[in-house]
Amino acid sequence: MFVGVDLGGTKIAYALIDHKQGRVLARRVTPTDSADGPDAVLMRMVGDIRQVVADAGVALSDIRGIGCGVPGVYDDATGHTLFLPNLVGTWHQVPVGPTLTAALGIPVWLINDARAFVLAEAAYGAGRGHANVVGFTIGTGIGGGVVINQQLYMGIDGTAGEFGHQTLALDGPQCGCGNYGCLEAFASGSAMVAQANVLIESGQAPDLARRIAHGMQLTPSVMVSCSDIAVHQLLAQAYQYLGAGVANVVSLFSPNVVVLGGSVAQLGEPLCAAVRQVVIERCRATPVARIAIVTAALGGDAGVLGAAVWAAHRSGAEDVRALT
Amino acid sequence: MFVGVDLGGTKIAYALIDHKQGRVLARRVTPTDSADGPDAVLMRMVGDIRQVVADAGVALSDIRGIGCGVPGVYDDATGHTLFLPNLVGTWHQVPVGPTLTAALGIPVWLINDARAFVLAEAAYGAGRGHANVVGFTIGTGIGGGVVINQQLYMGIDGTAGEFGHQTLALDGPQCGCGNYGCLEAFASGSAMVAQANVLIESGQAPDLARRIAHGMQLTPSVMVSCSDIAVHQLLAQAYQYLGAGVANVVSLFSPNVVVLGGSVAQLGEPLCAAVRQVVIERCRATPVARIAIVTAALGGDAGVLGAAVWAAHRSGAEDVRALT
Repeated sequence: MFVGVDLGGTKIAYALIDHKQGRVLARRVTPTDSADGPDAVLMRMVGDIRQVVADAGVALSDIRGIGCGVPGVYDDATGHTLFLPNLVGTWHQVPVGPTLTAALGIPVWLINDARAFVLAEAAYGAGRGHANVVGFTIGTGIGGGVVINQQLYMGIDGTAGEFGHQTLALDGPQCGCGNYGCLEAFASGSAMVAQANVLIESGQAPDLARRIAHGMQLTPSVMVSCSDIAVHQLLAQAYQYLGAGVANVVSLFSPNVVVLGGSVAQLGEPLCAAVRQVVIERCRATPVARIAIVTAALGGDAGVLGAAVWAAHRSGAEDVRALT
Repeated sequence: MFVGVDLGGTKIAYALIDHKQGRVLARRVTPTDSADGPDAVLMRMVGDIRQVVADAGVALSDIRGIGCGVPGVYDDATGHTLFLPNLVGTWHQVPVGPTLTAALGIPVWLINDARAFVLAEAAYGAGRGHANVVGFTIGTGIGGGVVINQQLYMGIDGTAGEFGHQTLALDGPQCGCGNYGCLEAFASGSAMVAQANVLIESGQAPDLARRIAHGMQLTPSVMVSCSDIAVHQLLAQAYQYLGAGVANVVSLFSPNVVVLGGSVAQLGEPLCAAVRQVVIERCRATPVARIAIVTAALGGDAGVLGAAVWAAHRSGAEDVRALT
């Protein structure tokens, strides 16, 4: 049995899986409250892991490993986090792995949250049964991950799959990463919202402005539901960039399945159809008719499930694909 | 023992390798003369394979497999070529594999020539000893290939690694493939030459024009050696696109080594240094200091050696890495 943890900016999700029976035995979600600092968060994580194991009526000694998804960069060799930009406080060199292991006596493996998402979707979700699966997490930023022969492909220190930081215009807008013209700078949720705010301020999006004035939060879904032509042109352009970014990943990996996840991918089939059309137009040297481009199937569960599968893979457990 | 064949637009190279002793036992290079049509080319290939094996004093029955690199698209299941744009005549559905096997009694596996190049460089060349190696062939077009865990990563039907057909500008110039803004349309040898011709015609490249008038062929190396500022600006821009294309591959694969090959890569260290600089500037989420970006080490041998290694891999031979 393995525990998956998904350490997010606002909440932490936990799941206990029985990899032999293929079942999720218990789940738990708690607020991150990272303003308390990393030590307090880690103390609560220890308690919550004990709790989710106890909820299932399982002994802690039966847990063979813990996978912990983190929203950023970590050091696989030490189990320390290096850079988690969405969490309050300094998470540089926080010994997440060693602290949990010391308190619980269970090995811990960290994993980037986008990689965990793709691993879960490949093993149990939209990519199930296929050899090579790539995935995009399109939310505040744009992350990605690569599963080759049903195993996560990591590159150096787990950094393979930075799909959001591919350059799509050499002199494009500056990205949060420092580079210019990244996919993320054109088509992430926050890029779309920033572009919509410019339209609102310049008076080109009166309907959207009205909705925001009535207390709605400015999100890509609200943008889709508004009647402003300029906003829909903005969305169409973001889809063009998203499609080009997916097309590049398709040309490079020629995968069986591309899974689109994250809050922006919840726009669903209209977004997916637009991306598919761009991929057909741009990927002339790849058999795109044999590549499925689909939205994620596991919803919010992908993060914890992927982290648990990662722990199973790293501990050498076999037949984790039996999980349902 | 395995035979590697590299079927090119102008010549066909052959090599016989002893994978256990790690030696190339014999080589042979003959003109392609594809104007005679595929049947004549295949008949000559059968004779030349017999010859290269005889030259080494080896019996045909000791050859366990033949790998045949082709400059284009093929069907792995049937061993037929589908599209070889640089060969004269129609190479659609030419049964290269079945014809050689019927004549010689030896299994044949086709491979794209850029993939063969990367496999050879990963096994014996600039990527030797590293797990994950990607390579670019920068010549008339731009090809690529991916070696993961010392095995060629194929994607669907060997189409993974189309590095030249990544989009770098959504509304860029049209590429030979039909898409707009491909890396190949900006930075291949033929793209550079076409751009230089525009400068010559508009009078902005008098030194280059003089050299061409004196009978020199217009190539990227002649461009590098000329004194026209506009030509050097053109080269600098091509390097920027090449660097962005390499940076995208680095962000997606996070490989240990990037190998640059093909005629344009023979420009050597100035090109390599320019590409490295762009990768450092653009890849902020990848540990670029730990990624080597180098020119190819095997020269013209990469194609045949890669084809031979491919046959060894496909036939299940072990320890082909002992080859030197």
